[in-house]
Amino acid sequence: MDKLNNNKLVQKYSNLYRSVNEEFINIHPIQRGGLLTPEAYKALINYGDGYSICDNCLKGRIDEIENPPVVDFLKDMATFLGTDNVMPTAAARESKRLVMEALTKKHPKRKTVVIDSLAHYTTYLAIENNNLKAKEVPNSGEPEYILESENYENIINEVKNETGQLPLLIVLTHVDYKYGNYNNPKSIGEICKNYDIPFLLNAAYSAGILPINCTENDIDFIACSGHKSMAASGPIGLLGFSSHYYDDIIRFSEIKGNVTSKFFPNKICTVLGCPPVYGAPLITLMASFPTIVKRTQKENVDEESKKANYVINQIKDINGISIVGKLPKIHPLTNIKTECFAEIAKSHPRKGFFVRDEFKERGIIGMAPGISQEMKYNTYGLTWNQVKHFASAFLEIFEKYNLI
Amino acid sequence: MDKLNNNKLVQKYSNLYRSVNEEFINIHPIQRGGLLTPEAYKALINYGDGYSICDNCLKGRIDEIENPPVVDFLKDMATFLGTDNVMPTAAARESKRLVMEALTKKHPKRKTVVIDSLAHYTTYLAIENNNLKAKEVPNSGEPEYILESENYENIINEVKNETGQLPLLIVLTHVDYKYGNYNNPKSIGEICKNYDIPFLLNAAYSAGILPINCTENDIDFIACSGHKSMAASGPIGLLGFSSHYYDDIIRFSEIKGNVTSKFFPNKICTVLGCPPVYGAPLITLMASFPTIVKRTQKENVDEESKKANYVINQIKDINGISIVGKLPKIHPLTNIKTECFAEIAKSHPRKGFFVRDEFKERGIIGMAPGISQEMKYNTYGLTWNQVKHFASAFLEIFEKYNLI
Repeated sequence: MDKLNNNKLVQKYSNLYRSVNEEFINIHPIQRGGLLTPEAYKALINYGDGYSICDNCLKGRIDEIENPPVVDFLKDMATFLGTDNVMPTAAARESKRLVMEALTKKHPKRKTVVIDSLAHYTTYLAIENNNLKAKEVPNSGEPEYILESENYENIINEVKNETGQLPLLIVLTHVDYKYGNYNNPKSIGEICKNYDIPFLLNAAYSAGILPINCTENDIDFIACSGHKSMAASGPIGLLGFSSHYYDDIIRFSEIKGNVTSKFFPNKICTVLGCPPVYGAPLITLMASFPTIVKRTQKENVDEESKKANYVINQIKDINGISIVGKLPKIHPLTNIKTECFAEIAKSHPRKGFFVRDEFKERGIIGMAPGISQEMKYNTYGLTWNQVKHFASAFLEIFEKYNLI
Repeated sequence: MDKLNNNKLVQKYSNLYRSVNEEFINIHPIQRGGLLTPEAYKALINYGDGYSICDNCLKGRIDEIENPPVVDFLKDMATFLGTDNVMPTAAARESKRLVMEALTKKHPKRKTVVIDSLAHYTTYLAIENNNLKAKEVPNSGEPEYILESENYENIINEVKNETGQLPLLIVLTHVDYKYGNYNNPKSIGEICKNYDIPFLLNAAYSAGILPINCTENDIDFIACSGHKSMAASGPIGLLGFSSHYYDDIIRFSEIKGNVTSKFFPNKICTVLGCPPVYGAPLITLMASFPTIVKRTQKENVDEESKKANYVINQIKDINGISIVGKLPKIHPLTNIKTECFAEIAKSHPRKGFFVRDEFKERGIIGMAPGISQEMKYNTYGLTWNQVKHFASAFLEIFEKYNLI
């Protein structure tokens, strides 16, 4: 085994510098919603140390800390999401895994999770991790990839017929990672209610960007992501859940030491005691919360949609550019096919990397490196000047390569 | 449901301030090892945003990111721990849970995890979470709480006789949460090797504070905690593991969408794709790593032990004070019985809170609030001046209440 050389270690690790924020406009599709607010930055610096949030932990439970006001925050967040309870988790993927695990204990014979065909890979992995089976609800395919709620009903009946059991859970991706499509949960929530099947909304890309009310949409569980869409340093997820499932999710420890007789009845077994969000993740989420509440109000949501649609309108008629996903955009995550760029990449000395190079020269980063066939970006939270600069950059590049 | 009032939210959450670090000496038992290094602070501010570490992710896997140098870091950390592989996890508790889950897939009939009777509650919860049974190895009891390795052998044979199966896993707590006892893994590692039972060292309190070499001690798995003992913002754990168990831990996804045919063969199912440590947790751990390597060298370790033993020597002869756990201290987490304080608390207007009050008046915080019967503290990383001030504070309080 190699020996460690401390000089080399210092060289490699002691000056980790990220130039992104100050010098560039970052349109990385999964980063726009996670950029910290000034309040979160302040909290981050104050609470940077490991267990900082636990200074005044009196009950051995992070969700019961009153100073800083975690208890209040979880209640306020539940109100914000229109659900009964909120528990922090390691990440939205972990929220999904925990729900499936809890429901499997409740309904061990139900082995199928019905998901939409736009689901994030972590939805699949949460299913696999619980030794369950995924059954996909199809979409309308190119170019809009629309989910029809009646297909949910068909698939539920298929599962019933094939397995003799109801699905364990129905999952809908509120806004998907690939096309940024907004999927209204209302009618699917009604179907789930009629069939008495638990309904989980994966709101990792949406909660914190778009408004959502679980109760009004018959949503039993909601998975959220602080680092993706709630301006938190993270990683931190949230699991919102209706009181109907309280005892399934908040399962207290029952194990007892055979020699010591130690037991831990106030520890939540589901999250191994306290979810791993002590310190920076939770405190930054709390500090950003007032901004989150404000930015999900109609006026701001409409303004952000306008920005996304503005860029699209500037570029959509170029030959070799086609917008994928539902239009007009509601959520600003946008996917475009860029056949014109792919054509250029064939003979460009930098191959597909030229796309990233050209935008970077214009002060814009966040494109997937090396990819020229398609582009995913997100205009969320950019100023109008930045949005216009981004659209102009497209047009400049089109011009440079004689595409217009 | 209540309505959210934005003014109130701003009031409650927009100014989260922690006074601890600048104004007080913090002797909180689980916080000393997690205090950030200056390099980690710089990295924290640079990489505060949600997915900041993923700017240059080319392969969709956090453990394969080369800029910042995650790949190098994981290799260097494996070298540091004397193991073959290192994967970040949400926290040390999650490392333990993952190992038990992986081994259960390998040996589904083995249902017993043998643990020492000083184990942290999360060891029990990881067992419970995997529907396994804990079997405790006794200790010598008050005042030293010593674990004898021959008892491990006895318990292993008991499990074999009772269940017809070997234990699934043996867990040793390297340094325990309660007495700060250092338990040498060497002889237990040998026993595990002889019986061919996987051996996990819970090094949440030790790795990053004391040196440890897994290979030399026949340790198959090591669970570490960045926020507890490696000067990381966190939460972040590490799971170190020998190559013998590589395929059990790094289990790639095999699920496939029935409609979309989507599959994710490069995603690690065990950690749901990427462990939730993107951004601040991992970058601060990386930035502190050179310091961690340095501070676990003999000279510094000896100096830190000296500080802990200095305080003990100053106070141990006071009537009504007794030191619990093995002496002299190797790890500076210290537990003392403070019967003299408990006696005073009976008639003190502030009850048990007077202990915390008295220390706080002297610029020292981190005591469990309201507790007067015992005290847990940690002198790790205090300057000698601070150590002496802490010991003097004890003596001043003893004097004030006529205990000396």
